[in-house]
Amino acid sequence: MKRSDGRAAEALRPVRLQVDFTENPLASVLAEMGRTRVLCTICEELTVPRFLAGTGRGWVTAEYSLLPGSTDRRSEREVSRGKPSGRTQEIQRLIGRSLRAVVALDRLGPRTLWVDCDVLQADGGTRTTAVTGAYTALAIAVARLRARGAIDLDPLLDSVAAVSVGIVDGRVVLDLPYEEDARAEVDMNVVATGRGRFVEVQGTAEQGTFSPEQLAELTRLALGGIDELTRHQAEALARARVDA
Amino acid sequence: MKRSDGRAAEALRPVRLQVDFTENPLASVLAEMGRTRVLCTICEELTVPRFLAGTGRGWVTAEYSLLPGSTDRRSEREVSRGKPSGRTQEIQRLIGRSLRAVVALDRLGPRTLWVDCDVLQADGGTRTTAVTGAYTALAIAVARLRARGAIDLDPLLDSVAAVSVGIVDGRVVLDLPYEEDARAEVDMNVVATGRGRFVEVQGTAEQGTFSPEQLAELTRLALGGIDELTRHQAEALARARVDA
Amino acid sequence: MKRSDGRAAEALRPVRLQVDFTENPLASVLAEMGRTRVLCTICEELTVPRFLAGTGRGWVTAEYSLLPGSTDRRSEREVSRGKPSGRTQEIQRLIGRSLRAVVALDRLGPRTLWVDCDVLQADGGTRTTAVTGAYTALAIAVARLRARGAIDLDPLLDSVAAVSVGIVDGRVVLDLPYEEDARAEVDMNVVATGRGRFVEVQGTAEQGTFSPEQLAELTRLALGGIDELTRHQAEALARARVDA
Amino acid sequence: MKRSDGRAAEALRPVRLQVDFTENPLASVLAEMGRTRVLCTICEELTVPRFLAGTGRGWVTAEYSLLPGSTDRRSEREVSRGKPSGRTQEIQRLIGRSLRAVVALDRLGPRTLWVDCDVLQADGGTRTTAVTGAYTALAIAVARLRARGAIDLDPLLDSVAAVSVGIVDGRVVLDLPYEEDARAEVDMNVVATGRGRFVEVQGTAEQGTFSPEQLAELTRLALGGIDELTRHQAEALARARVDA
Amino acid sequence: MKRSDGRAAEALRPVRLQVDFTENPLASVLAEMGRTRVLCTICEELTVPRFLAGTGRGWVTAEYSLLPGSTDRRSEREVSRGKPSGRTQEIQRLIGRSLRAVVALDRLGPRTLWVDCDVLQADGGTRTTAVTGAYTALAIAVARLRARGAIDLDPLLDSVAAVSVGIVDGRVVLDLPYEEDARAEVDMNVVATGRGRFVEVQGTAEQGTFSPEQLAELTRLALGGIDELTRHQAEALARARVDA
Amino acid sequence: MKRSDGRAAEALRPVRLQVDFTENPLASVLAEMGRTRVLCTICEELTVPRFLAGTGRGWVTAEYSLLPGSTDRRSEREVSRGKPSGRTQEIQRLIGRSLRAVVALDRLGPRTLWVDCDVLQADGGTRTTAVTGAYTALAIAVARLRARGAIDLDPLLDSVAAVSVGIVDGRVVLDLPYEEDARAEVDMNVVATGRGRFVEVQGTAEQGTFSPEQLAELTRLALGGIDELTRHQAEALARARVDA
Repeated sequence: MKRSDGRAAEALRPVRLQVDFTENPLASVLAEMGRTRVLCTICEELTVPRFLAGTGRGWVTAEYSLLPGSTDRRSEREVSRGKPSGRTQEIQRLIGRSLRAVVALDRLGPRTLWVDCDVLQADGGTRTTAVTGAYTALAIAVARLRARGAIDLDPLLDSVAAVSVGIVDGRVVLDLPYEEDARAEVDMNVVATGRGRFVEVQGTAEQGTFSPEQLAELTRLALGGIDELTRHQAEALARARVDA
Repeated sequence: MKRSDGRAAEALRPVRLQVDFTENPLASVLAEMGRTRVLCTICEELTVPRFLAGTGRGWVTAEYSLLPGSTDRRSEREVSRGKPSGRTQEIQRLIGRSLRAVVALDRLGPRTLWVDCDVLQADGGTRTTAVTGAYTALAIAVARLRARGAIDLDPLLDSVAAVSVGIVDGRVVLDLPYEEDARAEVDMNVVATGRGRFVEVQGTAEQGTFSPEQLAELTRLALGGIDELTRHQAEALARARVDA
Repeated sequence: MKRSDGRAAEALRPVRLQVDFTENPLASVLAEMGRTRVLCTICEELTVPRFLAGTGRGWVTAEYSLLPGSTDRRSEREVSRGKPSGRTQEIQRLIGRSLRAVVALDRLGPRTLWVDCDVLQADGGTRTTAVTGAYTALAIAVARLRARGAIDLDPLLDSVAAVSVGIVDGRVVLDLPYEEDARAEVDMNVVATGRGRFVEVQGTAEQGTFSPEQLAELTRLALGGIDELTRHQAEALARARVDA
Repeated sequence: MKRSDGRAAEALRPVRLQVDFTENPLASVLAEMGRTRVLCTICEELTVPRFLAGTGRGWVTAEYSLLPGSTDRRSEREVSRGKPSGRTQEIQRLIGRSLRAVVALDRLGPRTLWVDCDVLQADGGTRTTAVTGAYTALAIAVARLRARGAIDLDPLLDSVAAVSVGIVDGRVVLDLPYEEDARAEVDMNVVATGRGRFVEVQGTAEQGTFSPEQLAELTRLALGGIDELTRHQAEALARARVDA
Repeated sequence: MKRSDGRAAEALRPVRLQVDFTENPLASVLAEMGRTRVLCTICEELTVPRFLAGTGRGWVTAEYSLLPGSTDRRSEREVSRGKPSGRTQEIQRLIGRSLRAVVALDRLGPRTLWVDCDVLQADGGTRTTAVTGAYTALAIAVARLRARGAIDLDPLLDSVAAVSVGIVDGRVVLDLPYEEDARAEVDMNVVATGRGRFVEVQGTAEQGTFSPEQLAELTRLALGGIDELTRHQAEALARARVDA
Repeated sequence: MKRSDGRAAEALRPVRLQVDFTENPLASVLAEMGRTRVLCTICEELTVPRFLAGTGRGWVTAEYSLLPGSTDRRSEREVSRGKPSGRTQEIQRLIGRSLRAVVALDRLGPRTLWVDCDVLQADGGTRTTAVTGAYTALAIAVARLRARGAIDLDPLLDSVAAVSVGIVDGRVVLDLPYEEDARAEVDMNVVATGRGRFVEVQGTAEQGTFSPEQLAELTRLALGGIDELTRHQAEALARARVDA
């Protein structure tokens, strides 16, 4: 039994990681999973948050937003309500934690890497696409900092990527587009490293509940998808221009 | 090998659910797990959010806060910064979703039940204690609404409770006090029903990462703890005065 | 002629000052006057506001809030509106001023004592109960600081307590519960020291106006009530554990 | 013994109530007490607050601000901090309550009278000058509404005015300029009607405390000052042009 | 004498208007002038602002933002400060006014067209590029609304485009990139219609002042540039797919 | 053909610059053009914005507001909405830029001059009246700083004034009162120096558009009006008391 877009339950949507989509940041990746498109940029700032001052350690922090025209019905700009929504803050913290899980902050030196994930087009999975694209941009940025001698030892301990899984019509499926996400019984986001270890597991029953067996099946599918995303990330890194 | 407070890895802290701690709300429960104490109150409002207007369905929504003096070092009042923190919003949404997972909103009628969880004393696990106490107060409130004829059919489909689990010093443990939580390698909150099905699973690697086997062990311990909490909830309900 | 709860015009409601209701703060008192219950905690912070920097003097500041479920109809959380209401700010400043009136700030040393008054249950007189409870907690906190040698000379010059008085049905009465407060013609809060001198007198005609003779009678009743509260405070202090 | 500006203890500063200082509002009075100058305007709006909708009753509400250049050192504009200060809110509520104490709201009809008190120059006593000027402008506005037939029965039950009193250098004095206010031991604002009855009595010990005898003396001086202000108000009303 | 990028004083940078860069909005144009790239989207909402309710007229409103990574040094997200900056509001109002100058709002019907201009890459002239791109997207959106019969008569009375001019090193130049803009003596933005009539002229002396003769020369150059932009807009419209 | 108030197209309304209207600021001017009245005050602060710290240069910054009762229908106080409107910010920046265009900031020394423009009565042209009055007050303030030896070299390079022009009923007119402004086809504000050079030209087509010829005629009329305002400014300065 095929899904509405013809994919198998355990198949990802088409993945594309476009390197250097814009030129001003230290690195920039336009990450696409199906119709979902997220612009991920890395900017360097030579300061650190107060709690790290004087430690010699660096920081990685992330921000996320939906462009108003990215969604089917226009999304109100968050600045109009004066503060990021709870959803936005949750996503920002997820992206930041996921990246920091694979970064040795003491090797970054006293700098902050700002990761901005702006969704140009949304069709489900924007937060997981953001994690995958953000890591790719971060890895390119780090390579450039090393090439120009700003960083000595490689601060990246592993790669990290993310994908959604869920239960739709009673079936466990990988990488849900908006149409599936909106009617899923269970919705789960999984972040894992290139070596197949979990960084985050966030599963929510939207309707009903789920069993320990279903939890095991959901995480198995997610790890398979992340394995494939890891290969896409490696290819993008190989394509990126990194001059001394 | 015992934990710092002498408990076994799979043991809960002492649990206490004090019914009708305050008198003004429809129901009020002071929930305690060890030194963590959360006052959970239920207030009824005879309106519903706009998206439910005219549907005849009701709503359950939750708010959460730490009293400034509840923590070791004073916590700044959130109103001083003008908005709830991302952490607070995340917790509020978790509590609300967890309760709604076991409520048939169409049986509530056009009313909103406000669930307020205010932490009087914090020692780890405030959000999970809040879920457990909030369900208890909600069940008492619902019983009172039924006793006075305001609600006809029982809207509660199951019970719900929550507990934290984590990996501390490489060992999987249940119900972490603050001292363990602060140094845990992995921190997970699990919400499940009285019948042992998951509502939420949220696991985060704070240091390092975790394997599929560890995930399985963490959720097993959590389900055991929730089973015990479910018995405490049933006893508290049995004690509560519910007049016609 | 008796009042609705059977008290004489010049009688207080039952008073109870529960010491160390919570354990994390430096001192904590649950102050009750009738059904009104206010949790007063004292936290120490080793900094002072900017205008005192470098003077060696300390500071005492107070915050106040109603828990949402403390009132008959749920009170909206102030953080939802982004700022404390005018009423809350007025009360916070009243509590702070009242306490500072009896504290020699130069004897405190360069520390801020944060006084948090959170109303668990409201039945009129929450601000005056807060002042009475806050002073009690402050005196215990100061005794503990002295016992551990952090403060040398006693900074407390006198004690302070507060009570409401009013004109209800044309009659001057002491310590109004909500039911009387809501229909009072004149509403007055009086803060005075253990030696019977005024710190604050705030009287408002809610309906009509009042004469100089009524003003004299109102303040006379208030001083009588404060005298009794001063005895309760002394007993609570005697009960508090203060280790070296 | 004379005061620094040569006045007797029980003397007011020179009083001036300039009618129709600006032309756009329904009525406008520039009220001056010594160097303190407050522009009081009344604007009519044909709506009422929600809690009065459909009752046929009207409302009177007041707002207050200091122009940045009104004080010796520039006062920051409150909009820069995003909200009125606690002090501003306290004053606004005092002015509104004071005026409403002498207005029969049911005779106003379904309209709101907005009272704006903007301090052009500050030298102590801005809130009491505002009350005195605001009542004068309100009385002119009401006379104009009656002249054009918008209001039938006179809604003004009495007049109202306000003055400060205090204890400075141990002596009870009337109408404190800034120089005295800044070093007063006790600071009190009294609002009373033309018939000599209290509307508000707000006394605060800024240093030390005060006795019942001092309270009596303070209020006696205040009532004397208010009696004189009432005559100034009557003269200003007599001067105002009120066309049919 | 050539400019730093080799252009003549009266030459535009390379212009590119990419139609349907994203698919969710009613229309979407990625407008580029040199390295400046602005994503302009049009979303339809079937409501109108309150002041137009019941008039049958429609509305066009614009919002603008810089993505954080669009600039050389990262731009802080405006939501972090809680409100759009004065600069952003000024630009939003300029874009909205410019578009409404060529729209017959009574022909739009009771709908709001939201115009969102998000700068993906900034190199001077972002507000003028936004106007030019926004008109293009608006014209495509209107054509689509007419094709599906939602709008009857053409509401577009003329086209509109914008360009910057300035005085740099004493010389009047067209279409300033960031490098010139930052050191310009005079900076001017001109919005004009396809028929060569002004909608907005905003000139500011950043250093020194300018003469009436220079004003005339600046506006002459601007009208030349706008004429060329008008041809680009017509070509983009011709390329856009507009199905019945 | 005369205008509704009998003026010729190229005539200003009666101009009045009242020096030292209030006494607390360093300088204060009540500027009037017809019925429009703006109180302009200058306050000195011995700090500079962060970007000027350590440079020895000073700063001039302006704030603007409408008093609620200044307009025909009451204007809501901006603090009620928590932030200055876009219009207010635009005007504040215009006033600040206009003044700084004629000030040698390096001659001011490390001080900020705060310019506050508060509109007491509004009848069109409040922002241009503010610029004209603010310059007058600034020049007096600077003369006083020089007289007391705080500033050595004259920091004022030229004078500056402003006026509105517009197209009303197809005719180009100078200095529009509210009645003309509200129905103008084109609305333009011009800021120029005493020597007749432009600082700002801001023209907006409110209905329709305007031609290059009309632009030339508008700016010609504006320069004539500014020439006359410059004479009024010089007379006011001559009247001001400037003691050593």
